[in-house]
Amino acid sequence: MFSVTVRDHMMIAHSLRGDVFGPAQRLHGATYVVDASFRGEQLDDDGIVVDIGRAAEVLHRVTAALTYRNLDDEPAFAGTNTTTEVLARTVADRLADAVHAGELGDAARDLTGIEVTLHESPVAWASYERAL
Amino acid sequence: MFSVTVRDHMMIAHSLRGDVFGPAQRLHGATYVVDASFRGEQLDDDGIVVDIGRAAEVLHRVTAALTYRNLDDEPAFAGTNTTTEVLARTVADRLADAVHAGELGDAARDLTGIEVTLHESPVAWASYERAL
Amino acid sequence: MFSVTVRDHMMIAHSLRGDVFGPAQRLHGATYVVDASFRGEQLDDDGIVVDIGRAAEVLHRVTAALTYRNLDDEPAFAGTNTTTEVLARTVADRLADAVHAGELGDAARDLTGIEVTLHESPVAWASYERAL
Amino acid sequence: MFSVTVRDHMMIAHSLRGDVFGPAQRLHGATYVVDASFRGEQLDDDGIVVDIGRAAEVLHRVTAALTYRNLDDEPAFAGTNTTTEVLARTVADRLADAVHAGELGDAARDLTGIEVTLHESPVAWASYERAL
Amino acid sequence: MFSVTVRDHMMIAHSLRGDVFGPAQRLHGATYVVDASFRGEQLDDDGIVVDIGRAAEVLHRVTAALTYRNLDDEPAFAGTNTTTEVLARTVADRLADAVHAGELGDAARDLTGIEVTLHESPVAWASYERAL
Amino acid sequence: MFSVTVRDHMMIAHSLRGDVFGPAQRLHGATYVVDASFRGEQLDDDGIVVDIGRAAEVLHRVTAALTYRNLDDEPAFAGTNTTTEVLARTVADRLADAVHAGELGDAARDLTGIEVTLHESPVAWASYERAL
Repeated sequence: MFSVTVRDHMMIAHSLRGDVFGPAQRLHGATYVVDASFRGEQLDDDGIVVDIGRAAEVLHRVTAALTYRNLDDEPAFAGTNTTTEVLARTVADRLADAVHAGELGDAARDLTGIEVTLHESPVAWASYERAL
Repeated sequence: MFSVTVRDHMMIAHSLRGDVFGPAQRLHGATYVVDASFRGEQLDDDGIVVDIGRAAEVLHRVTAALTYRNLDDEPAFAGTNTTTEVLARTVADRLADAVHAGELGDAARDLTGIEVTLHESPVAWASYERAL
Repeated sequence: MFSVTVRDHMMIAHSLRGDVFGPAQRLHGATYVVDASFRGEQLDDDGIVVDIGRAAEVLHRVTAALTYRNLDDEPAFAGTNTTTEVLARTVADRLADAVHAGELGDAARDLTGIEVTLHESPVAWASYERAL
Repeated sequence: MFSVTVRDHMMIAHSLRGDVFGPAQRLHGATYVVDASFRGEQLDDDGIVVDIGRAAEVLHRVTAALTYRNLDDEPAFAGTNTTTEVLARTVADRLADAVHAGELGDAARDLTGIEVTLHESPVAWASYERAL
Repeated sequence: MFSVTVRDHMMIAHSLRGDVFGPAQRLHGATYVVDASFRGEQLDDDGIVVDIGRAAEVLHRVTAALTYRNLDDEPAFAGTNTTTEVLARTVADRLADAVHAGELGDAARDLTGIEVTLHESPVAWASYERAL
Repeated sequence: MFSVTVRDHMMIAHSLRGDVFGPAQRLHGATYVVDASFRGEQLDDDGIVVDIGRAAEVLHRVTAALTYRNLDDEPAFAGTNTTTEVLARTVADRLADAVHAGELGDAARDLTGIEVTLHESPVAWASYERAL
């Protein structure tokens, strides 16, 4: 199996609801380093599993829609805790939508899965993996 | 599938028995950077797969029981080579015990697996992955 | 010359005032990875320039007073843009106060300088260096 | 499951054929940071899944045969785009050959798989995973 | 003293002339991770030493003029060994020209120095530091 | 000013004498990631400040004389606490001896300084800087 990963980052504010979050219930923020992996069983005639340049562009479009924002005010997350896990799934699902919409080109048609990892600090990160 | 990873480290002395270890048969030491991943299929109502704060605390308790020690003198490792692989398994098993004992809280009940990676240097690391 | 550096991190929300900041004028956030270096010309009788354990504790106290907060609401920063440069200086000045108050112990009496670096993302960081 | 990973690097020149590669169609180059993981279900009597020293030597032999070269001139890659994916597969296949030829020793007999990751920059990498 | 650093990268092919370079006399390549630091004694009214966004743009313009090229064919380097040291100086000098041309804006007028570090691999890098 | 840095690592056991060291008074160990920087004002005719290949070899010789050892048993450190600061100075002094003995070649004659950084964990490191 092959995979190609591209990295970007985003800087957001948010708060989390629930006693389990302790001081993170206060409005605070994070730089999320975002790694998006695209998986496939085979290479196309160009020798790639996905166009790495397009993958980077699409990931940047996804992070650009989230960065420099207070996620507490974003309608997309109304009633949802924007935990690292939830944001990893959000990024993965938006990338999956982009693949299905053809934004990653022909080579991406045979992709079998996506994994997104969000690093919230040097000592903590979360991932979400899904099929395509 | 979701996973949450927390990182800690420990600084130990040890020696390894067996010709295969060459100069590592001498008493020497290592800083192990320890990454512990907790995996689960679903998020709970708070939007998490595991309480990342508790996960960090439990991992720290496990590394604190090993750090600043000569593992050659630890009864827990009598007759065992404390290779990076063995130590990765030890940490993973102790974390699994903590999960089963309820130390990671209710959210951890549905965890399906643990993976522990020990980095012994910038150019070498080992992992152990197990079900819960 | 010797230096000892310890690393911690903090997760804050803030906004910046001024056209130069573009989208960062909106409320957003950052994980700051904070590196604090303590410099001295000589080692004490224990062979250290500063007690690295105490240095880590004092740095943690400084970051703990800032993390999980919206800096726009902190009286300490009223009327001040909390840029990465300003925050690096704030951390450095608070560490200098701790040194002068004796919180880093006797070994720290001969320290000559402090440098603090705040990494706001994998591709941007800022430092402030001052004498003691 | 256990895995042991060793890291090396290589510095190559190459060009890529196909419109999809944009400016990378020009002759350019890359430092590839190469991570090779060896997987197995069990530890041998020494407590290892593979001799990490030998694994590092074999990986170095593989990267040494590629580094400081223009891959456009290498017969092994005639008619092949030397994409990051293709190079990851090449390294993995050469490591698999070495395992089968006994170059990693007895402990390596029970290895079940290999994964090779090539980092081409801090923001892009590709992997290839295969059975043994 | 303050400094702000931005990071970018470039992927080039080149060869080096001179016995001292051993196998690097052959045409090969490198991913250079490029860190550019801008230094100043004071913050402006916005609380910055330089506009970090503009600094990143200017650095990207400089790396974009070098990346995806065979430096052996670039007129700018005719008769010059494009060692890591030389390339660090080239990047620093081009950034200094940009500062002097006003491309980094008013805040950059009081900058006192630039340092550029080029990482050629995880185990080797070179820097060049100059006044402004 | 130019500098060239090479990285290596060593894995040692040791204990530290003095209440200030707390649990580090017990026999324990560390992986030290060692960065050695060589500084000079000018490039030679080859365009280098020092032969990076030779610098790596000399650094490796220095770390090879320390790695896989219990420093408590090394005559060179009798009566000396092998703190990170002390070890950084030891490595720097041995590198300076090598420069003076001509082991880094002619280009190294004009080097003006050396700085050595030892990383003992991801959150702590120490440096020693000296003239040549």
